[in-house]
Amino acid sequence: MAVENSTPPVSPSPSSEHESGVWSQIKAEARRDAEAEPALASYLFSTIIAHTSLSRSLSFHLGNKLCSSTLLSTLLYDLFLNTFSSDPALRAATVADLRAARFRDPACISFSHCLLNYKGFLAIQAHRVAHKLWLQNRKFLAMSLQSRIADVFAVDIHPAARIGNGVLLDHATGVVIGETAVVGNNVSILHHVTLGGSGKVGGDRHPKIGDGVLIGAGATILGPVKIGEGAKIGSGSLVLIDVPPRTTAVGNPARLVGGREKPTVHE
Amino acid sequence: MAVENSTPPVSPSPSSEHESGVWSQIKAEARRDAEAEPALASYLFSTIIAHTSLSRSLSFHLGNKLCSSTLLSTLLYDLFLNTFSSDPALRAATVADLRAARFRDPACISFSHCLLNYKGFLAIQAHRVAHKLWLQNRKFLAMSLQSRIADVFAVDIHPAARIGNGVLLDHATGVVIGETAVVGNNVSILHHVTLGGSGKVGGDRHPKIGDGVLIGAGATILGPVKIGEGAKIGSGSLVLIDVPPRTTAVGNPARLVGGREKPTVHE
Amino acid sequence: MAVENSTPPVSPSPSSEHESGVWSQIKAEARRDAEAEPALASYLFSTIIAHTSLSRSLSFHLGNKLCSSTLLSTLLYDLFLNTFSSDPALRAATVADLRAARFRDPACISFSHCLLNYKGFLAIQAHRVAHKLWLQNRKFLAMSLQSRIADVFAVDIHPAARIGNGVLLDHATGVVIGETAVVGNNVSILHHVTLGGSGKVGGDRHPKIGDGVLIGAGATILGPVKIGEGAKIGSGSLVLIDVPPRTTAVGNPARLVGGREKPTVHE
Repeated sequence: MAVENSTPPVSPSPSSEHESGVWSQIKAEARRDAEAEPALASYLFSTIIAHTSLSRSLSFHLGNKLCSSTLLSTLLYDLFLNTFSSDPALRAATVADLRAARFRDPACISFSHCLLNYKGFLAIQAHRVAHKLWLQNRKFLAMSLQSRIADVFAVDIHPAARIGNGVLLDHATGVVIGETAVVGNNVSILHHVTLGGSGKVGGDRHPKIGDGVLIGAGATILGPVKIGEGAKIGSGSLVLIDVPPRTTAVGNPARLVGGREKPTVHE
Repeated sequence: MAVENSTPPVSPSPSSEHESGVWSQIKAEARRDAEAEPALASYLFSTIIAHTSLSRSLSFHLGNKLCSSTLLSTLLYDLFLNTFSSDPALRAATVADLRAARFRDPACISFSHCLLNYKGFLAIQAHRVAHKLWLQNRKFLAMSLQSRIADVFAVDIHPAARIGNGVLLDHATGVVIGETAVVGNNVSILHHVTLGGSGKVGGDRHPKIGDGVLIGAGATILGPVKIGEGAKIGSGSLVLIDVPPRTTAVGNPARLVGGREKPTVHE
Repeated sequence: MAVENSTPPVSPSPSSEHESGVWSQIKAEARRDAEAEPALASYLFSTIIAHTSLSRSLSFHLGNKLCSSTLLSTLLYDLFLNTFSSDPALRAATVADLRAARFRDPACISFSHCLLNYKGFLAIQAHRVAHKLWLQNRKFLAMSLQSRIADVFAVDIHPAARIGNGVLLDHATGVVIGETAVVGNNVSILHHVTLGGSGKVGGDRHPKIGDGVLIGAGATILGPVKIGEGAKIGSGSLVLIDVPPRTTAVGNPARLVGGREKPTVHE
């Protein structure tokens, strides 16, 4: 999804080594936290310590978070577990997203904290499953998942949207990503960000976000514009134009910092 | 609520024909989806197929969505069903809102998808019941409903606010509509939109939105201003002034496109 | 937290007299509402009338709102009750927050309405408990609470953030307050407000909000800037600079009304 040459992305390829290493660390964290806070021991046991893999723990946790009185947690657990189990690329994306939160968000204190508590992380993992269902033409189930994610996490991602690996949705409340949007690898998106439509009735109408882009809180990007690799979009901006790689856009409507003709490019 | 002459609105009058036609179509969609996705058959049965009318299905679904451990689903189901059953105008509004989502949102694939999954649609239907309770001076119950809608859908509509028919809250997260606001027929409101107060201590202090207005994502309209019929409010704008009919306002603070004296009017 | 001399704040000191007076009023309101709306009598009994103190009622209500299938309501009830019971300053803050909603929000019709229905009020009370846990180095539990508050109320307050007394989060959806933020007494914050980081990797990086500040809907304040006592921040502004006391800042990026050199100061 990069628009230009880029520095090598962080672990975009599936790697079971990463997966087992991160999972071992999560279990160690959970055991330490359970010891320090006995009141949470049974919570940590049921969500993490009792499980034999990251996929099982994540599927259990997502099933409990997204279920309702009519959409049962057991149905969702089976759906998530079957999907993660059969697709190493999905599991690699989960690991990359965990690493993105752990190393790019200064408020993230552990992998298990992200796994259990980050609504942005959980929303993306559930979206990845919804996206796979969408590609298999199981549209009704995909959209039911989208709806539950929107209810529970206040994050609304159309199941057709394509999301790269190592993506951080920080705080996450209010993020809306439309049907034909594409988000690259190692993108950071703050809360209240919209990747929205141009008003066209159908077809390609949402933004394409390059690798390594940072989108500030409350930014609204509309239409099939291209945000180049490593660009930065200021908080509260309204972006209706292409933004070149490694360039900053700010304001409502957004202008390129340094001027439209000769924008300032990060080193 | 129109400020001027307008093109004929889409089905603003109660019509039991529309209601039964849409309900037949919803049941047919649910049966087709249950066949294509057996894992969801029991979900579709309990939410749609088992019911004998749109009001019953909607009341059951809203009761389950909005209940809590202390505000029981059976209480809410009875409340919704009694209110919808006794008021054909409310049922006509539901049908108009379903049609608004189905025909104005390119991501809406069926009536049943909207009925089950659109938090904006569900929030408005519950608000219509809260509004009726408010008019009957059952304020405490009306405000309890408002609070549950705000918790569950992140949509906060004061029960006194008057909302027209055929209204689409697209994505819906973060919409806030104040006590003395009025929203016309066939209005489309994107997520994070505020129809807020002017800071006055009480009395008339919120916007009046004309028929057919489109309000973009993140727009904030404050005070008892009048947004004329068919006007368009740009994403992320801050509107503190009247906007004439069929005129576009953009920016923070918003200006009329084409200039304040001679604004450009659509066709 | 005041930046300058100020008018005497409203009841910032613990006062058991205020507490028992407000609690008596809440019970009287609940009995009156239960009589007027028999369908809600058992709801009002279980949430208010059955309890012997404001702390018990609040702890019961928060436990039910914030629990999940794995984080049990009984655990949360005990946690809240033990914390409120042992800390008169926390109880005084609760009373000051109830009074802030009751007397500063024209849509608030009673103390019990605020106690049961205001997600902003409930989010702050739960945050005060999370903050105390954070100071006791019980970080994992504090962050688990933060996460539940973010899921249930769409309000994301880092447990390390320091929040004064008499604070009103009006509508509240989408409020985000970062780790090193400080909010003074008698501050009013509308929905979608961000007190966010400057992009620094760690350390002091969030705003300091003086006593009596009003922050409009959708305002974003970034970095360790100082918003002086009694200042007003306009809706939808992006604030990256210090704002002097009793001064208004508006726009994206925000400018001081009256000019940067000679800003207009309120009376």
